[in-house]
Amino acid sequence: MNVMIDLCVVPLGVGVSVSPHVAACQRVFQDAGLSHQMHAYGTNVEGEWEAVFAAVRRCHEVLHEMGAPRVSTSMRVGTRTDRDQTMADKISSVEQKLAPAQ
Amino acid sequence: MNVMIDLCVVPLGVGVSVSPHVAACQRVFQDAGLSHQMHAYGTNVEGEWEAVFAAVRRCHEVLHEMGAPRVSTSMRVGTRTDRDQTMADKISSVEQKLAPAQ
Amino acid sequence: MNVMIDLCVVPLGVGVSVSPHVAACQRVFQDAGLSHQMHAYGTNVEGEWEAVFAAVRRCHEVLHEMGAPRVSTSMRVGTRTDRDQTMADKISSVEQKLAPAQ
Amino acid sequence: MNVMIDLCVVPLGVGVSVSPHVAACQRVFQDAGLSHQMHAYGTNVEGEWEAVFAAVRRCHEVLHEMGAPRVSTSMRVGTRTDRDQTMADKISSVEQKLAPAQ
Repeated sequence: MNVMIDLCVVPLGVGVSVSPHVAACQRVFQDAGLSHQMHAYGTNVEGEWEAVFAAVRRCHEVLHEMGAPRVSTSMRVGTRTDRDQTMADKISSVEQKLAPAQ
Repeated sequence: MNVMIDLCVVPLGVGVSVSPHVAACQRVFQDAGLSHQMHAYGTNVEGEWEAVFAAVRRCHEVLHEMGAPRVSTSMRVGTRTDRDQTMADKISSVEQKLAPAQ
Repeated sequence: MNVMIDLCVVPLGVGVSVSPHVAACQRVFQDAGLSHQMHAYGTNVEGEWEAVFAAVRRCHEVLHEMGAPRVSTSMRVGTRTDRDQTMADKISSVEQKLAPAQ
Repeated sequence: MNVMIDLCVVPLGVGVSVSPHVAACQRVFQDAGLSHQMHAYGTNVEGEWEAVFAAVRRCHEVLHEMGAPRVSTSMRVGTRTDRDQTMADKISSVEQKLAPAQ
């Protein structure tokens, strides 16, 4: 089963700057060979369910290894059986609706 | 690694009433033997990482089997290495802070 | 317009224990006279849209006043026009579906 | 108080395709003159608290007007008092950490 997620990891107990932790997660997704795209308040990741959630678990482990005693992640998790749809498909589908109005 | 999650499954394409789908997920958590507690806008689940996320995957599968072509779940995922803390611990920790003020 | 939310406030830069901050938010909802119910990974709040979101804003302000330089909240926000439904209604609607199976 | 949010609106009872609804929300943010950026599983919006949440409310109203009897939105809401940080700043802060490793 394919899945698309959007996640935002928040390490607690490491101060205010979390960009090193976010960067570490980007490397986790890259090392896992998963399609991913960072935005200003999270990261989109898509792939096979087990591979995606193994990477999410690895993010938590890496952040704990970096010294965060606590990690709280917020996620959206989307699956569909009607058709395949990539991250690019979802954006272009909305943009087609926007085009006539502009 | 132990994990506590809060999740809210939203099946799309099945109309407005989603309570049968939420009930099906409660049964998934129960069948998995996972500690879980439903509230008005989601469900807390705690346990070992792999068991919890296998149940989340099973929820998506069950909802698709029930006819939902698309499922969008929002989740919080919390892990900590400093100490064990159950769902009941978290609530009582806040209630202790509230008590003196009342 | 009535709204039901579920929110989880996460203060950054204040260490690992966030229960004083969660307790402060409970007082904000209580002072606002809003129906609210804490669970192990968040709080349900329901009421008129403006009153609910004024309280959410007040939570962020209070946490900053308590010393958190950064606050990241995750929320679910639900509205419906087909009928009124309280937090208790939502839970009992699911429990009715669960009953026959037990 | 400035705020950065990431939101994903999910209309229920309108079938599987939600791109017209997502497009309608993009227009709400554009009409409100708010800085916003869509991604594959949500939209980042930043601005003054009241303006941003007035737009979120408007999204719910517009989706109900488009025929959705129920709307469930998931959001992240971030505020900080230590410094100003735009959506572009957040991304470039992570990219600087990634650069040396590549």
